[in-house]
Amino acid sequence: MTTSHPFREAERRAHTEGPFDPEEVRLANRNSGLLLEALRHDVTPAGLHYLLNHFDVPYVADGTWQVDIAGRVKRRAVLSLDEIKKLPARTLPVTLECAGNGRAAMMPRYQSMPWLYEAVGTAEWTGTPLRHALDQAGLLDDAIEISFIGADRGFDRGHEHSYGRSLRRDVALSDDVLLVWAMNGQPLLPQHGYPLRLVVAGWYGMASVKWLARIEALDKPYDGFQQVNTYMYRADANATPVPVSHIRVKSLMVPPGIPDWYTRHRLVAAGPTPLFGRAWSGGGVPIARVEVGIDGVWHDAELDPPQGKFAWRGWRSQWNAEPGEHVLSCRATDADGETQPLEARWDMGGFGNNVVQCVHATVR
Amino acid sequence: MTTSHPFREAERRAHTEGPFDPEEVRLANRNSGLLLEALRHDVTPAGLHYLLNHFDVPYVADGTWQVDIAGRVKRRAVLSLDEIKKLPARTLPVTLECAGNGRAAMMPRYQSMPWLYEAVGTAEWTGTPLRHALDQAGLLDDAIEISFIGADRGFDRGHEHSYGRSLRRDVALSDDVLLVWAMNGQPLLPQHGYPLRLVVAGWYGMASVKWLARIEALDKPYDGFQQVNTYMYRADANATPVPVSHIRVKSLMVPPGIPDWYTRHRLVAAGPTPLFGRAWSGGGVPIARVEVGIDGVWHDAELDPPQGKFAWRGWRSQWNAEPGEHVLSCRATDADGETQPLEARWDMGGFGNNVVQCVHATVR
Repeated sequence: MTTSHPFREAERRAHTEGPFDPEEVRLANRNSGLLLEALRHDVTPAGLHYLLNHFDVPYVADGTWQVDIAGRVKRRAVLSLDEIKKLPARTLPVTLECAGNGRAAMMPRYQSMPWLYEAVGTAEWTGTPLRHALDQAGLLDDAIEISFIGADRGFDRGHEHSYGRSLRRDVALSDDVLLVWAMNGQPLLPQHGYPLRLVVAGWYGMASVKWLARIEALDKPYDGFQQVNTYMYRADANATPVPVSHIRVKSLMVPPGIPDWYTRHRLVAAGPTPLFGRAWSGGGVPIARVEVGIDGVWHDAELDPPQGKFAWRGWRSQWNAEPGEHVLSCRATDADGETQPLEARWDMGGFGNNVVQCVHATVR
Repeated sequence: MTTSHPFREAERRAHTEGPFDPEEVRLANRNSGLLLEALRHDVTPAGLHYLLNHFDVPYVADGTWQVDIAGRVKRRAVLSLDEIKKLPARTLPVTLECAGNGRAAMMPRYQSMPWLYEAVGTAEWTGTPLRHALDQAGLLDDAIEISFIGADRGFDRGHEHSYGRSLRRDVALSDDVLLVWAMNGQPLLPQHGYPLRLVVAGWYGMASVKWLARIEALDKPYDGFQQVNTYMYRADANATPVPVSHIRVKSLMVPPGIPDWYTRHRLVAAGPTPLFGRAWSGGGVPIARVEVGIDGVWHDAELDPPQGKFAWRGWRSQWNAEPGEHVLSCRATDADGETQPLEARWDMGGFGNNVVQCVHATVR
């Protein structure tokens, strides 16, 4: 699936505690995050959902798309978009987060897309459970993984490849893995995978392959670049890599008050101040508790009703803001007892950072 | 309109040739640009139009918005959104570009939003010429400027203010200054000014005030922070500031081939390669010519039919790509004879950079 190539620029990537290189800024300009104030919306409005695309957004003319289902199947199937849309439909609210969210807050940081807090969003995805499409081809008994290949193609660290990922057979057959053609009741936007993408509910975003062109059933583990060369937790170069999968428990707040343009530091008027935001976890595990920290003193927040097994949950609290400098935080705990750390857990690639958010505010 | 404030963080901003500070990366994460491959689309899809918001996106509950028209008018008018929508409607395709586009490519650069090429987009805006709303209040003869105040509020360099700009009376009364409630046939998205904004066709984006809450007719020049303290061309600290207004002539190409993830360097297959993109100018001045430069040798590109007086114009060319390293550029000239420079014109605030784009490509 990969071929080597003379590009060697990427080898300049390093771990650093220093300022940011132009390449990182270029990626920050290309990829876009949720504006934190948009955490107000149960469903993230179009254009505010985070976006991380490795390569260019492919141009797709209307009416031409088809998906090839091949490999360890009884009969190869080539399905048009219209044929896929005739399969049983399901709409699911799902919170997706980039596995690299928080990378730029890790010290030292790995040079890649320098996310801070904002690589998250919630949409109502409409599609069909993948298993209905797989039924058209019929998986052979020896198919242990299903791979998903997008139409987006490029290089990473000298390797040319189309973006691809795989899922274990049992995961792929779950009702929560969807072949999606609509987002918030509208056809997918080009940058979100038009006309067809995968959405793997409960997983970090790298699993939800966009511009899905090919599905292949495999009798051995998929060895694509994005499966084996990245999206791995590694404490150091010698550690056994652990694949990134489910989203880790996390919460964010809408920063109160008004911002300074350049620093985004907040000014808040003294007095009772509502604090609110969202909390989520992966793998369908519910949020059990959200705490709000004011200068390191923690209180329980009130939880809004759940929006669905895979969607973030609202929370709210009240803060009696007193004049001075303050640090505001929120910390979520899920039903498995997992909670957000106060200091970022180190990872070589900057993956899975669910450290508590800190909002610095001046009250007057 | 402004009050001083203890925030002093912004004073760390400087001119630099060095790497990027975390504040610049935070702004790049908040503000989002057009993906260059989306230049293919005549009208930029939702979520791909550039976005530069100084402060937070205000939250607006449905059905509550009204606009106050006051100052040097015969009778103060408070118009609801429904009342404004009953005024004569006009839909206009308009290319908007951020005045700071290209700032990060200026050396040294001013520390602010570090745009490279991508702060541009074209939408079909639906609204009513502003003059119809002003007629509801009746401008007095001594009104020489009209100011426009948004609901977004924050600090810049220690000054608290709501975002506001003004236009000269004669400009404001033009048919090409619209009070807009729809973008590409849909209600405005929150981040694009829902429910009502100004669109000043032919001007850089700072004039097109979002979340428009108040219109005031003035008998003296407007002195709001965003009018007098920024968006000024200045060659040095002692130069007389020249207000930023019309968009300067510019063009961009869709980078050919496929990218490297980190550097965005391009790989192109040898052989005939279509090159295409968009060109635009400000003030309604048509594009007269686009040239494509291959390693510094220039050829005329073919122009697509115009899309409207204020919208970008497509262009296309063919490149016989030969193996090796190449630099691709495009250069537009408008009907006034203005053309893009080969080196960025210096400006202290990084405004109005219309230097030709350079795309580095390896052909094999």
